[in-house]
Amino acid sequence: MEHSLFVLVDMLGTFAFAVSGAVAAEQRRLDLFGTLAIAYVTACGGGIIRDVCLGALPPAGMADGRYIACAALAAAVAIWARAAIDHLRHPVVFFDSLGLGFFAVVGAHKALLLYQNIEVAIVLGAVTAVGGGTLRDVLVNRIPVILQKEIYAVAALAGASTQVIGQRMGWSLAVTPWFASSVCFVIRFLALRYAWSLPVVKKKNTT
Amino acid sequence: MEHSLFVLVDMLGTFAFAVSGAVAAEQRRLDLFGTLAIAYVTACGGGIIRDVCLGALPPAGMADGRYIACAALAAAVAIWARAAIDHLRHPVVFFDSLGLGFFAVVGAHKALLLYQNIEVAIVLGAVTAVGGGTLRDVLVNRIPVILQKEIYAVAALAGASTQVIGQRMGWSLAVTPWFASSVCFVIRFLALRYAWSLPVVKKKNTT
Amino acid sequence: MEHSLFVLVDMLGTFAFAVSGAVAAEQRRLDLFGTLAIAYVTACGGGIIRDVCLGALPPAGMADGRYIACAALAAAVAIWARAAIDHLRHPVVFFDSLGLGFFAVVGAHKALLLYQNIEVAIVLGAVTAVGGGTLRDVLVNRIPVILQKEIYAVAALAGASTQVIGQRMGWSLAVTPWFASSVCFVIRFLALRYAWSLPVVKKKNTT
Repeated sequence: MEHSLFVLVDMLGTFAFAVSGAVAAEQRRLDLFGTLAIAYVTACGGGIIRDVCLGALPPAGMADGRYIACAALAAAVAIWARAAIDHLRHPVVFFDSLGLGFFAVVGAHKALLLYQNIEVAIVLGAVTAVGGGTLRDVLVNRIPVILQKEIYAVAALAGASTQVIGQRMGWSLAVTPWFASSVCFVIRFLALRYAWSLPVVKKKNTT
Repeated sequence: MEHSLFVLVDMLGTFAFAVSGAVAAEQRRLDLFGTLAIAYVTACGGGIIRDVCLGALPPAGMADGRYIACAALAAAVAIWARAAIDHLRHPVVFFDSLGLGFFAVVGAHKALLLYQNIEVAIVLGAVTAVGGGTLRDVLVNRIPVILQKEIYAVAALAGASTQVIGQRMGWSLAVTPWFASSVCFVIRFLALRYAWSLPVVKKKNTT
Repeated sequence: MEHSLFVLVDMLGTFAFAVSGAVAAEQRRLDLFGTLAIAYVTACGGGIIRDVCLGALPPAGMADGRYIACAALAAAVAIWARAAIDHLRHPVVFFDSLGLGFFAVVGAHKALLLYQNIEVAIVLGAVTAVGGGTLRDVLVNRIPVILQKEIYAVAALAGASTQVIGQRMGWSLAVTPWFASSVCFVIRFLALRYAWSLPVVKKKNTT
């Protein structure tokens, strides 16, 4: 997987997440700028947190105009094609799951390149994938979806771990990222399709 | 604009934002320390995020005691002169708008000095200006004001962009910051006075 | 106090905070992973913010697998021994107060080692101690407890300040951390026992 291919994959993930951010912002009746801002944060927030934790400054999501343009374009598409998106529920989930896998792989790869530390690579792979969505939910004042019903972060951890294992075991560079993304994607997509969820810890009737 | 002048401008912005933080904290019935903490976060949070993203560590908002003292002083004033502040609604908005402009310019200037990257300077100028207020709103558990009705972040982006354009075009260093702050201030203040707002994206009756 | 002793102390704090995070997550009915994630963020979030602000990258809470394992173990204990924990209300508060003191001291010590700046050491000592709990509360969508009724951050500031004073005055390295932690612990524990609180700023009937 070439560097330019990583960028392409990153852009696809950025686009998918920006759409999901714009949709969440519209549901909260934010204005046009608020919608753009949430789309940008959802798409680039995870990567910015990753780069800050890695010391790879300034963060690519700020320094590289392509990410900003990609997020803005996605938000515009989400706003103007709202009706279409409402019909496309499954495709949105499809792209979101795809983005999750790609971001987990890209994040783990970048972290491993910089520090050669397995824990950092797995944690930051997952953070890259779920960070943007978490910021989005915090900003629109709801409990992050990833903490609730869906097998979301688990899929991201699985994807990042597979990428790390692959790089450490010397798997082919042309195959590992695709395989690792697929692991994340399949877990996430099947979980959504069949409403899998992790057990909720039983609680007492406390406030 | 000398370095010492930048510091003065930064202090004025810090003071104005700390007052707005303290008022928000009081409305949520936080205790004395909570009020001080929110005032500090509102005043220094944007600059701290900027410095973390720039790698300018430790962040000035932590390392320079003057910022901490300034925020504490402003919170004390806000608490003891609450009645006066309630009468001074327009002056508060005035100082808040002024602070927004100064922070956008200071942030863009610092980012451009360190990295010579236009996107980074514009994004971090705006982040410096709106970051503290966003953290304030997240901590008191409401949707950030900047994402809702007011032309707030747009004004910050305009101020930061003007500063960046001015520095790149070689405008006089003695004029650019004042002009750029004014652009931000005028947009923000007029928007508030005449209740301008960006269009809200039309939404369907979804949850 | 040896380096290895600092690590031990850090682990104890990590464990105590992870338990409190897991309990908060269960009350919000998060799933198993959400509970683990909140436990990890509560335990390691403060230290990660500190390390990012210090430029000590990658953050120890990500790079050192022992922290991750410790948080996961604590969450598991919290889940499986829920009934026991409900009976142990005071011990939980005891460990939480202990963790607060140790984290404040560890944070101030690390900051002072790296930058020799008193303000940074006090602020980051307190941030290390209260940062995780604040992130926990933001993620489960409530106003951070530290901003409300309890003398929590004040105790952390007192502990961090004592540690800084001790290191600057040349107090014995074997005594200072224990004394500084005790200052924080005693303030926090007595405040809880006797329901001390700071005065709430009087407010008018505004929204």
